[in-house]
Amino acid sequence: MTGREGGAPLGPDLHAPVVVLVRPQLGENIGAAARAMANGGLFHLRLVAPRDGWPLEAAWRTASGADRILEAATVHATLAEAVADLHHVFATCPRPRHVIKPVLTARGAASELREIAGRGLAAGVLFGPERAGLDNDDMAAADGLVRYPLNPAFMSLNLAQAVMVLAYEWWLAGDGSDAPAPPPRTLMTNETRVATKAELEGFLAHLIDELDASGFLRNAAKRPGMVRNLRHLLQRGEVTEQELRTLHGVVTELARGRRLRGRLEPDMPDP
Amino acid sequence: MTGREGGAPLGPDLHAPVVVLVRPQLGENIGAAARAMANGGLFHLRLVAPRDGWPLEAAWRTASGADRILEAATVHATLAEAVADLHHVFATCPRPRHVIKPVLTARGAASELREIAGRGLAAGVLFGPERAGLDNDDMAAADGLVRYPLNPAFMSLNLAQAVMVLAYEWWLAGDGSDAPAPPPRTLMTNETRVATKAELEGFLAHLIDELDASGFLRNAAKRPGMVRNLRHLLQRGEVTEQELRTLHGVVTELARGRRLRGRLEPDMPDP
Repeated sequence: MTGREGGAPLGPDLHAPVVVLVRPQLGENIGAAARAMANGGLFHLRLVAPRDGWPLEAAWRTASGADRILEAATVHATLAEAVADLHHVFATCPRPRHVIKPVLTARGAASELREIAGRGLAAGVLFGPERAGLDNDDMAAADGLVRYPLNPAFMSLNLAQAVMVLAYEWWLAGDGSDAPAPPPRTLMTNETRVATKAELEGFLAHLIDELDASGFLRNAAKRPGMVRNLRHLLQRGEVTEQELRTLHGVVTELARGRRLRGRLEPDMPDP
Repeated sequence: MTGREGGAPLGPDLHAPVVVLVRPQLGENIGAAARAMANGGLFHLRLVAPRDGWPLEAAWRTASGADRILEAATVHATLAEAVADLHHVFATCPRPRHVIKPVLTARGAASELREIAGRGLAAGVLFGPERAGLDNDDMAAADGLVRYPLNPAFMSLNLAQAVMVLAYEWWLAGDGSDAPAPPPRTLMTNETRVATKAELEGFLAHLIDELDASGFLRNAAKRPGMVRNLRHLLQRGEVTEQELRTLHGVVTELARGRRLRGRLEPDMPDP
């Protein structure tokens, strides 16, 4: 099942969600993912720390003409950098566990992505490395998880196949043919807007600084998990830019006593 | 997006439709197609005149463990022989022309295939060679055509991707998850649960107490709106009981400096 329309333009949908390949290993898979994206009308590709660097000749070989996607692809050192300007991020993962986040099917995610694009917001979908998949920290960067309904007895899904299913559902969701009613969403006002991931990270950094200074995160073994929990909590739902400003104020205010005094020992007696 | 259940059997559905690869060229694609079949719970693979013969080592390399499908695959000299025992045959093709036959979407075909299997009949789906696709004679062997709704500006669909979309829709059609996308659901773990409204209010009361004590809410006109914003923020998404405990700790810790000193004046100089 092949053949490409000779002179037809790719006709990229610039409002389509960004595909973020996190630590991809093989150039072949990156190219095949780009080809699948083109099949489903996706265009924006971002690569986080590709193992073999970028560009890779192998990617062009398997892209089968989806060159414009590869040429426009951007490379990022960290996932945080790759999603900084996005408003919504979904993470694909075969077996969500120990994670409290909304879990969507591919179809459900496609429908949400259409709805998000319709509101003029920028979304991205994360795909993990070939062997290991996304790790816990990657998933903490996402607002929701996407789990494909597929044979649980054979979960080994090729990276480009994972992109294909999402691209296919994205295309279908724009078709109007089987679009389910969009779920109720947060109402926007004129006064504020959904915070970007960079703004969320800015607040988290502020909060963590203060918690480090206060000693709350002093248990080194527990620190990563606690930070991840705080990140999970903030990713859920759409935090607005105005709410983040309020939260900055809350943290600053609560921490003022400590800042005026300097670091307090946990059991320091009241003077 | 990877990972395979260790000891789980493939659990092949022996009534699932046969995948017929017509004159496939690359062993890699045959293996990748088998992997996609396993993902969607398909099992029977037939090869019509594979260009490089059979078996092919490359196929096992890309099948990623779907070996039983490759081992059970049969080779046929002609398409007629390959479909001889089937009751229904669908042919996938990107651009049906000069052919008067029913044309189905992948989803429509999956639904028909389920219905056919439910009646105890044997069905097959034909996929053409990598470059040329099925020819007119191949299509003449089919009861109906399957055309995927995908980007018409980029029709170059990889063979294994074409199998993937069908396998995915086959799985969905049997899953019952063909129904409208479910609303976002929160995944629970053994370790925690969604917080009750009373627990949320308990945390809000704690936070507001500290903010009142610190003077953050001293502007009486703005206070109700600020409290409401904090409540809105916490109600969005499902906060867990464990996360609330973390938040209680955060607020307590951040406020400790003030509590030890008593109420600080906003512009009180550092002693």
